[in-house]
Amino acid sequence: MRIARVRLLSSGAEHYGVLHGDQVHILAKPPFDGIVESRKRVSLGDVRLLPPTAPVDFWGIGMNYGDHLQQAQATSGLPITGTMRPWHKGVGGIIGPDQPIIIPPEAVEVHYEGELVVVMGKRARRITPAQAPQYILGYTCGNDVSEKHSWEKEPGQWRGKGTDTFAPVGPWIETDIEPQGHELIVRRNGKEETHGNTSQMIHSVYDIVSYISRFITLHPGDLILTGAAGISQAIHPGDVVEVEISGIGTLRNPVEMEKL
Amino acid sequence: MRIARVRLLSSGAEHYGVLHGDQVHILAKPPFDGIVESRKRVSLGDVRLLPPTAPVDFWGIGMNYGDHLQQAQATSGLPITGTMRPWHKGVGGIIGPDQPIIIPPEAVEVHYEGELVVVMGKRARRITPAQAPQYILGYTCGNDVSEKHSWEKEPGQWRGKGTDTFAPVGPWIETDIEPQGHELIVRRNGKEETHGNTSQMIHSVYDIVSYISRFITLHPGDLILTGAAGISQAIHPGDVVEVEISGIGTLRNPVEMEKL
Repeated sequence: MRIARVRLLSSGAEHYGVLHGDQVHILAKPPFDGIVESRKRVSLGDVRLLPPTAPVDFWGIGMNYGDHLQQAQATSGLPITGTMRPWHKGVGGIIGPDQPIIIPPEAVEVHYEGELVVVMGKRARRITPAQAPQYILGYTCGNDVSEKHSWEKEPGQWRGKGTDTFAPVGPWIETDIEPQGHELIVRRNGKEETHGNTSQMIHSVYDIVSYISRFITLHPGDLILTGAAGISQAIHPGDVVEVEISGIGTLRNPVEMEKL
Repeated sequence: MRIARVRLLSSGAEHYGVLHGDQVHILAKPPFDGIVESRKRVSLGDVRLLPPTAPVDFWGIGMNYGDHLQQAQATSGLPITGTMRPWHKGVGGIIGPDQPIIIPPEAVEVHYEGELVVVMGKRARRITPAQAPQYILGYTCGNDVSEKHSWEKEPGQWRGKGTDTFAPVGPWIETDIEPQGHELIVRRNGKEETHGNTSQMIHSVYDIVSYISRFITLHPGDLILTGAAGISQAIHPGDVVEVEISGIGTLRNPVEMEKL
């Protein structure tokens, strides 16, 4: 099943809905306590896709693929360990499909990072990896946009990864897949630049969810970035970046320079 | 004016209210677009004080007082610079007055850090320090509870400062004060352990708000910790920690061990 959060172009109202071909079956309530379709149906052409949830928190796990870990070690000076290092991506930067990534003039070198995103379905605290699937609603695509020149080296990465619009997520939540074993491709202006597979993660999705939940409660709708594969590249105004994950879909965002 | 967020003990309903002595005048709507009192009034004894807002994000500014900066440098190995380093405290750990700080068994050395907290009143992006006062609703007390043994040294400080219950805030929002010039006292079990003054901040409140807003939109209700004064001490189950700021009030929380 594919669950999207949509804004009706006619009224501006926001709803969750289930996708059936090019139709959206509007849900009677958010999808976290079970899927209840209302009678309302709209065409995909009559809605704008929003970020798939409005999370309480948006987490990241750094350096979860071998090739990206080497890149990070070489360029960022970050300490590299085998330990999971969750961090707050921050919810302020979240944008949906087709919304522009806006680069502020203070940024020197901004990269895409295409990643599988976990969408939590239930409140979770101190759950085991084996319990994790029951607490996960599904998966979507994310672009962990990052300023690599100097901001990412700052403690906390607040602006390195948290700047407004640096967190594209979408296009929808796929609920019927396992997290590992999916092709993870990033294209810039139609050309493939990185290509990995979520089976190459160092820490599995279920281990990540379990580990965060040992210390901090995960809420329905919370999002977790699970790491970039491959060697990320810089993006520039005028570019279009696509993150495609097999079995989910494609998240596409144009890049613009901030107008001051 | 003192604005609190309260839960009515009778119905469980949550409201904002204005404090008049021991009476709470319930507001007709959240206080961010102007204060509109409803006709409903309740006694302070008939409500529970909640965290003063439910923010989109909760920010921190590390090492903003000279004595605490020296402590951080000596014990945490964090790089010390003159630059502001905002970080995500995270909203998951927020608790209100009198709620317990719960220490997980994995934590080795947990400290209080008493701090002035800024409460944003309006959406703010790229505002100047001179404009900041118009965007701030008021101030409250915060306890930036931190695991100092090893977690705080991890990049992102996700569990070092973000563990559930590690973010007590309250008791209410004082709207009629300037941010600098207030006594900032932390007591453990009734005994004063740190004593500073918000005039000793390295970066002023208005500079901090302006700096974050250059990169990330601040939302109504967002909170910003402005740094601890003095040499923080460890807390243990059974302790009661008070953060008192002159002109605002006292935030009091007991400490418990997590029961697994």
